[in-house]
Amino acid sequence: MKDLKSYIDTKFDQIELPKKPENLYDPIRYILSIGGKRLRPKLALLACEMFGGKKEDAVNPAMGIEIFHNFTLLHDDIMDKADYRRNNATVHKKWNDNIAILSGDAMNNLAYEYIIQCDTSVIKEVLSTFNTTAIEICEGQQYDMDFEDRTDVEVSEYMEMIRLKTAVLLAASLKIGALCGGASLDVSNEMYDFGVKIGLAFQLQDDLLDTFGDQKTFGKRIGGDIIENKKTYLLCTAIKKSSDSLKEELMGYVTNEYNIPEDEKIVAVTNIYNKLGIRENTEDKIEELYTEGLNLLNNIDIAEDSKTELKAYVATIMKRDN
Amino acid sequence: MKDLKSYIDTKFDQIELPKKPENLYDPIRYILSIGGKRLRPKLALLACEMFGGKKEDAVNPAMGIEIFHNFTLLHDDIMDKADYRRNNATVHKKWNDNIAILSGDAMNNLAYEYIIQCDTSVIKEVLSTFNTTAIEICEGQQYDMDFEDRTDVEVSEYMEMIRLKTAVLLAASLKIGALCGGASLDVSNEMYDFGVKIGLAFQLQDDLLDTFGDQKTFGKRIGGDIIENKKTYLLCTAIKKSSDSLKEELMGYVTNEYNIPEDEKIVAVTNIYNKLGIRENTEDKIEELYTEGLNLLNNIDIAEDSKTELKAYVATIMKRDN
Repeated sequence: MKDLKSYIDTKFDQIELPKKPENLYDPIRYILSIGGKRLRPKLALLACEMFGGKKEDAVNPAMGIEIFHNFTLLHDDIMDKADYRRNNATVHKKWNDNIAILSGDAMNNLAYEYIIQCDTSVIKEVLSTFNTTAIEICEGQQYDMDFEDRTDVEVSEYMEMIRLKTAVLLAASLKIGALCGGASLDVSNEMYDFGVKIGLAFQLQDDLLDTFGDQKTFGKRIGGDIIENKKTYLLCTAIKKSSDSLKEELMGYVTNEYNIPEDEKIVAVTNIYNKLGIRENTEDKIEELYTEGLNLLNNIDIAEDSKTELKAYVATIMKRDN
Repeated sequence: MKDLKSYIDTKFDQIELPKKPENLYDPIRYILSIGGKRLRPKLALLACEMFGGKKEDAVNPAMGIEIFHNFTLLHDDIMDKADYRRNNATVHKKWNDNIAILSGDAMNNLAYEYIIQCDTSVIKEVLSTFNTTAIEICEGQQYDMDFEDRTDVEVSEYMEMIRLKTAVLLAASLKIGALCGGASLDVSNEMYDFGVKIGLAFQLQDDLLDTFGDQKTFGKRIGGDIIENKKTYLLCTAIKKSSDSLKEELMGYVTNEYNIPEDEKIVAVTNIYNKLGIRENTEDKIEELYTEGLNLLNNIDIAEDSKTELKAYVATIMKRDN
């Protein structure tokens, strides 16, 4: 797995972007250099290899997906007015909003430069999958923003939002990798369905770590979602499960009714979550999704030992603490 | 030509976008309904027919180009803080910046949904042309923004900026239309070169109309570029041609040194342009580019009467007053 990460990192290091205009390309170089887990390209390459393809068969689309993913982070950070991303200043803070909008736009198109570098026999399916996914991610981000003004978000609405915003790109990475590796469309779609489950579980883990993670390993401030009143799986489930009096108390925090310090708010809301057993509910849901995902993967009609590497990697991301 | 316009308009009327999330799709419906000249899809269809293709062979990529063009206008309007576009409120004014960023992003990806609907034999070349062009347009927009802080923009830098920001998309429309119509790559590239010349001439016309157009037909306020100190062909040429004393006077206006009403500034700068013969210089340059373009078109090795419709259309846009 380390080999795969360094293979992908080397490929990113080798990207040569024009020098000028600096205000367009410097931000792109910057955000791509910050790195991250490279989760999506790894999934694409593992899916490709699972069906007997070589890394090289899927590496360009895999990079395109990662470039696209970084573009969405860049634009999300403008919309969320976020100051930091992976412990570095966000592009719109380091430069400005206009430069962040435009360099993001260029990355969206740059992604396609890589996506189209796949075998002609699969290009239409690869592109069609990617386009649909890209538009769904915009839908997910819009729902996420719409939720900011609401306090009545149902758990089912939340799950649909994270399916669109997060899960479909993991799913598309697996499908596109499989297509590049020679899998049939049907089997590639089975990989997609597996990816949706894993993607949902992945996002619920994010929600869980944000409140119950270990400050030392998590990287971000624990309780950030609580401070921002984010409609997470934890909050939506807590609202659904709480009695009238507890719901009233919780809503007081969510609507910033009480004028209390941030740390106190984090403790108070976490206590409500503890009373309601929200941590266990979320862990159960993650386990359920992971199991459903593995069942889908197990049902794919290919020698079991071809699945070993992908399974091992997914197991590591399911045990992550950051 | 009216038939072509109504064919394209009907195709746009037939686009069915999802209802939800409303804040994502309503702005897209809105900007696409405002219309415009549909210049780029018209060029693509005419280029396709010139080589014996049917409108249907190029209409989807043509629509993709138009959707992409409207996306760039949407994002440019955020960056320029423009309140109006084609006499209607801009998306970021009617909704807000975040919604405008995101619906624009979705349009960029939606464009590809249409672009890929072309014959498999040309898809890689069509996509590669489109990607390169899309990124060049970002470069052009970045240069345009960089020029805002400069008063020393050379005419050659300005011409390169408008080549990137405006001309290459007209050129790509012609090239992609030609490819879809069955033209060889070499001939399609000749169409591209013709398009660059026409695109440059088109932008210089814009500059000219903004200062010397007729208020009744132009649609926008005459002198807008002067008020905004835009680095146009007129201004760059005037700076280059003016004597030291006249340049000092002109710079006083460009840097907003004199505290005078907008109308007075428009009259004063227009007077300087008149003293220097800038209108004639610009008209000459447009004529030169148009002639160079027509020569390139004439050199394309195909029956002359195949070129009639395209030539007639380009002649009408070269005589436009809005």
